[in-house]
Amino acid sequence: MIKINENFLELQESYLFATIAKKVAEFTKENPDKKVIKLGIGDVTRPIPQAVLKAMHEATDEFQKTESFRGYGPEQGYDFLREKIRDNDYKSRGIQIDTDEIFVSDGAKCDCGNIVDVFSENNKVAITDPVYPVYLDTNVMTGRSGKYNKEQGKYENIVYIPATAKNNFVPELPKEKVDMIYLCYPNNPTGTTLTKEQLKIWVDYAKENKSIILFDAAYEAFITDENVPHSIYEIEGAKEVAIEFRSFSKTAGFTGIRCAFAVIPKELKGYTESGEKIELNKLWNRRQCTKFNGVSYVTQRAAEAIYSEEGKKQVKENINYYKENAKIIKKGLEEAGYTVYGGVNSPYVWLKLPDGTKSWDFFDKLLKEANVVGTPGVGFGPSGEGYFRLTGFGTKENTIEAIERIKKMK
Amino acid sequence: MIKINENFLELQESYLFATIAKKVAEFTKENPDKKVIKLGIGDVTRPIPQAVLKAMHEATDEFQKTESFRGYGPEQGYDFLREKIRDNDYKSRGIQIDTDEIFVSDGAKCDCGNIVDVFSENNKVAITDPVYPVYLDTNVMTGRSGKYNKEQGKYENIVYIPATAKNNFVPELPKEKVDMIYLCYPNNPTGTTLTKEQLKIWVDYAKENKSIILFDAAYEAFITDENVPHSIYEIEGAKEVAIEFRSFSKTAGFTGIRCAFAVIPKELKGYTESGEKIELNKLWNRRQCTKFNGVSYVTQRAAEAIYSEEGKKQVKENINYYKENAKIIKKGLEEAGYTVYGGVNSPYVWLKLPDGTKSWDFFDKLLKEANVVGTPGVGFGPSGEGYFRLTGFGTKENTIEAIERIKKMK
Repeated sequence: MIKINENFLELQESYLFATIAKKVAEFTKENPDKKVIKLGIGDVTRPIPQAVLKAMHEATDEFQKTESFRGYGPEQGYDFLREKIRDNDYKSRGIQIDTDEIFVSDGAKCDCGNIVDVFSENNKVAITDPVYPVYLDTNVMTGRSGKYNKEQGKYENIVYIPATAKNNFVPELPKEKVDMIYLCYPNNPTGTTLTKEQLKIWVDYAKENKSIILFDAAYEAFITDENVPHSIYEIEGAKEVAIEFRSFSKTAGFTGIRCAFAVIPKELKGYTESGEKIELNKLWNRRQCTKFNGVSYVTQRAAEAIYSEEGKKQVKENINYYKENAKIIKKGLEEAGYTVYGGVNSPYVWLKLPDGTKSWDFFDKLLKEANVVGTPGVGFGPSGEGYFRLTGFGTKENTIEAIERIKKMK
Repeated sequence: MIKINENFLELQESYLFATIAKKVAEFTKENPDKKVIKLGIGDVTRPIPQAVLKAMHEATDEFQKTESFRGYGPEQGYDFLREKIRDNDYKSRGIQIDTDEIFVSDGAKCDCGNIVDVFSENNKVAITDPVYPVYLDTNVMTGRSGKYNKEQGKYENIVYIPATAKNNFVPELPKEKVDMIYLCYPNNPTGTTLTKEQLKIWVDYAKENKSIILFDAAYEAFITDENVPHSIYEIEGAKEVAIEFRSFSKTAGFTGIRCAFAVIPKELKGYTESGEKIELNKLWNRRQCTKFNGVSYVTQRAAEAIYSEEGKKQVKENINYYKENAKIIKKGLEEAGYTVYGGVNSPYVWLKLPDGTKSWDFFDKLLKEANVVGTPGVGFGPSGEGYFRLTGFGTKENTIEAIERIKKMK
């Protein structure tokens, strides 16, 4: 009898974006004359830089002839891309990362999700709360979460570390020992960041407790403040305790093109039950060679082009466009009397709702009165209740209009 | 303390292709004047059809403007591609598959590897022997294999089902009950097939034992014999017991472009320990939505183009080219007195070595005397010992020359 992985049955249905879509569809049907503006999405909208498209056309042409045809590529990614990553994302910041510590993939979601393969079920997992749901769900699937407590909105074996206005979005070290720690900075959904000193506290904790930090830096390109680290490896000792996930999705508009990478330094070790040290780089390499066949050659050439002079310039223009939108949202909402976080080193603006206002109630009000769609904070975890996410990924014109409408709300 | 998944330590290092590469490199260094012909690879070499390249260029251009920009696509694949698959791969053969039973992915290797996520560790796994190593290794990683027995070359909890000349490459039903059965037809590495009647025996077994068949049909495009099924769903009742994996890699030269799909019919159920029936389609959908972000839009448009009239014609030309090579190998080796299997509905030719000849010894002899590279059968499992794989994926000229050289071998 074929038995299923019953951990899957512990997963809570994620109604967040489905519910949003349904509510918007209903509203549009009832109000066909109203122009709904969506500032809830985490997806980019700007065209892909010309330098990148040029590289894609050229790469496509290589498949025309036997002499230049590209078959299976290396599972870890082509060196032409890994070298660009090494030099531009790390060496330029004084970080020494070797190409064989860089694993090119088709998405940070895949990497964040698949990384759990190499770890034992017997690890205690900590997530900040609110959080990108993938960290949690992939651990539920693999049996690290225990049962779901409906009342608390939490899994019993997961350590939730609140990051809210109360602690100024700086998560505190957990009281109990944890083994796997997910950190995402600049943060999704709150748009907040940690300084180097604040991140160092976590690196030190991980070193002391032989924990691992799974550091999601998908939004690093949005950082402008000097003391906000782009990479966790800017913190001394982090190479011994952290895996870093990066993505080209938000950086260069690759959500439909699919490219990302993970960095697993060779210094980083896991342990067997008997205490033997094992190189995680080797385990991940084996995992990728067995269950993955590399990223589309065309996509890898596209990613390479981001690092050209022209590519960098064009990427920066897009990033600035989204950041300008985030600024407009932040400024406008502050003028309207709201308390607002994020939106500086991030495309995300995290709105603290007036005391007592629930996330979903605000969603309904915003849709009805301003015809604007956002994302209820509670959808990202129990500590997100009373908050609301808006994003800078729309057009400038729509963003301005949306904010004007919100300002006029009662 | 971060604990690793110790199942990974049970993996045997796969030295097969690394050893081949090393031996070839050494030979080339010592014999720089000799022209080595590689007929060992499982990778395609023909240019991608023009219709496909045209679609890729057009899809790339869509990213130029905000109006046509494509962000995150559906995790399951775009409907434009799923509908083409439904109509051309299934409906055309009288098989009713719905689009939401088709999951587009970036590779059959990924699908075959990741599918184990949705099953309990407590399943008995059966593989035919010799076999594509991914089925085995991904089950080792997830704890279903038990310990490796070096002497036997086998894992203690895996049921190995020999498919050799002795049983005419028709694997017999296992004596003990098994839950997960991997079948790959047309077979890699042997190039042999099962008739509908032979496959039906497995479907009936699975129904009777509530087992699941993981059917890898990556090479179905090479089938010409009428009674060889292209899909396991041509067998009555298979939708209740089988997942089918397909790939565009060998069909249309997509090894560097990355596209495949898995079919999980809604009729297909797994069981909880307490015997409750669970739809596997739903579990896989949840897995993909959580750990995958869809295939590159450009790649999906490329795959769609395979199904155009022009695309089909061009794909067929490539397939015929490889098949012609396989025929040349088969015919030539038979003339040279070898016993040869496969090579008819498959790009793979499986050579039975003269009694007592070991796979690696033949490899060395072939390299030294004919300067031809093949793949030792034993690399695919213990029952592959005494066999050797050659493939039709080279150029016609090289294939002819290689066979001429082999014929002259002592």
